Amino acid sequence: MSDEAHAFVPGHVTGFFTVDRDDDPTKAGSRGGGLALSDGVSVTVERAQENAVELDGEQIEMDAVDRVLEALRATAHVSAETDLPLGAGFGVSGGMALGTALAANAAFERGLSYNELVTVAHGAEVQAGTGLGDVVAQARGGIPLRLEPGGPQYNYVDAVPARTRVEYHSLGELSTAEVIDGETDALTAAGERAISQVVREPTLSTFMQSSRQFAREAELLTPEVKRVIDEVTDAGGDASMAMLGETVFTLGTGLTDAGYDAAVCEAYPPGATVEDGA
Amino acid sequence: MSDEAHAFVPGHVTGFFTVDRDDDPTKAGSRGGGLALSDGVSVTVERAQENAVELDGEQIEMDAVDRVLEALRATAHVSAETDLPLGAGFGVSGGMALGTALAANAAFERGLSYNELVTVAHGAEVQAGTGLGDVVAQARGGIPLRLEPGGPQYNYVDAVPARTRVEYHSLGELSTAEVIDGETDALTAAGERAISQVVREPTLSTFMQSSRQFAREAELLTPEVKRVIDEVTDAGGDASMAMLGETVFTLGTGLTDAGYDAAVCEAYPPGATVEDGA
Repeated sequence: MSDEAHAFVPGHVTGFFTVDRDDDPTKAGSRGGGLALSDGVSVTVERAQENAVELDGEQIEMDAVDRVLEALRATAHVSAETDLPLGAGFGVSGGMALGTALAANAAFERGLSYNELVTVAHGAEVQAGTGLGDVVAQARGGIPLRLEPGGPQYNYVDAVPARTRVEYHSLGELSTAEVIDGETDALTAAGERAISQVVREPTLSTFMQSSRQFAREAELLTPEVKRVIDEVTDAGGDASMAMLGETVFTLGTGLTDAGYDAAVCEAYPPGATVEDGA
Repeated sequence: MSDEAHAFVPGHVTGFFTVDRDDDPTKAGSRGGGLALSDGVSVTVERAQENAVELDGEQIEMDAVDRVLEALRATAHVSAETDLPLGAGFGVSGGMALGTALAANAAFERGLSYNELVTVAHGAEVQAGTGLGDVVAQARGGIPLRLEPGGPQYNYVDAVPARTRVEYHSLGELSTAEVIDGETDALTAAGERAISQVVREPTLSTFMQSSRQFAREAELLTPEVKRVIDEVTDAGGDASMAMLGETVFTLGTGLTDAGYDAAVCEAYPPGATVEDGA
């Protein structure tokens, strides 16, 4: 048994989503669509005398990670690195939860299956209140369409069969918990409209159009985000807002064409992977 | 609309499987476990006046590909390239069917989802009698465990959460159709035993051990394959037989250590992908 193990989890920007509550955290979650990104979170789990969690060299508290370690009966030092901005709608907390599950399973030889580890991370993220659908999407990779909520035992995930360059530009943070703990009926209705449009035509252009419509209908657009999206549109591009962060994402060269020094990555086909054998 | 599109589908060696018949080809298929491989099939679909199918530069007939083109109402020239040996248990026919579905959907802008395309390719492969589970496994990537048969609407797929180097050495062809059209009760019972072992402990070593046991119990081992597996075991390695081909595969450096000039690749995390936007 090795003392440490590594995992990589793609980032995930959500274009549109619903809130689906359930007392069972493996059934609760959300439906929606997003992009798994080649920019992601690298997680190392090392057996230790007491738990510690570090992100980009700084000690942090992350409830979802603590819950994953507890579920796997693992006492460990978790260190994660990412180029993604935090609290800006890229699924960094989901990535840390899922990466911790995959790497801890390998380092502690827990013998759980891929879907069992996704279930643990999804449930931890839901209970921590930091996300509803990122973990499932990050386990799928590509351009996931979550058509039923919950973990792998309950959900149904499809995808847009395409690849694309992705650009993003982050203006600041938004609290996921504040939005998903509030009144979400209108948001869920808007999410359902977006999902049925993309199910009818699962292409990149419908995905972007439905994301923009969702951001508008769910009244989540901030003035700054709206201004950047409009600038991309004026430059001939196709942009929307990452749920939930003050972040604009585009396909192709949309932000660059509008004059922004955007981060560049691509839709990332594989889901999260442990980097070591088990 | 571009006139052509490309897709890449990983190869797939099956370690153990069941035969699950159903009148509906999207419900029929198999359960089992295998390895998706970084060696795979690259498929180009080009709009044309009449259908033609080519593999490594040679015109061929492939029923599953014809059925996919018909389902997508596509008249096209399909050309595929692969380093994998044919008829040797690597899922080349499934790869061609799934690659054709993904690329034709892009070239003809058919607007189908990923799972719909997997369903089309799976049903075509089942009806052609050339495979039962490769397409679903090739769509998943990684080290897929197919726990329920059929296409994505009906099946349930988990995975061994690991990565590994894979070596293979092919001695000749075996007919998939001959085995799966025959009496399969004993084979399916052996497959179910292998599946429950790997579900109980989804690790690489249990996967290999269950694959070897399946090959023995299902009486599919040929004398030549058995001899090579024994040589790998004597050299301290872990080998089994690819279902269905006269092919030995090992994890790590098993075949090399036993003195074989084996082909080397690795378990490939992403599932099949179209290489162009849509």
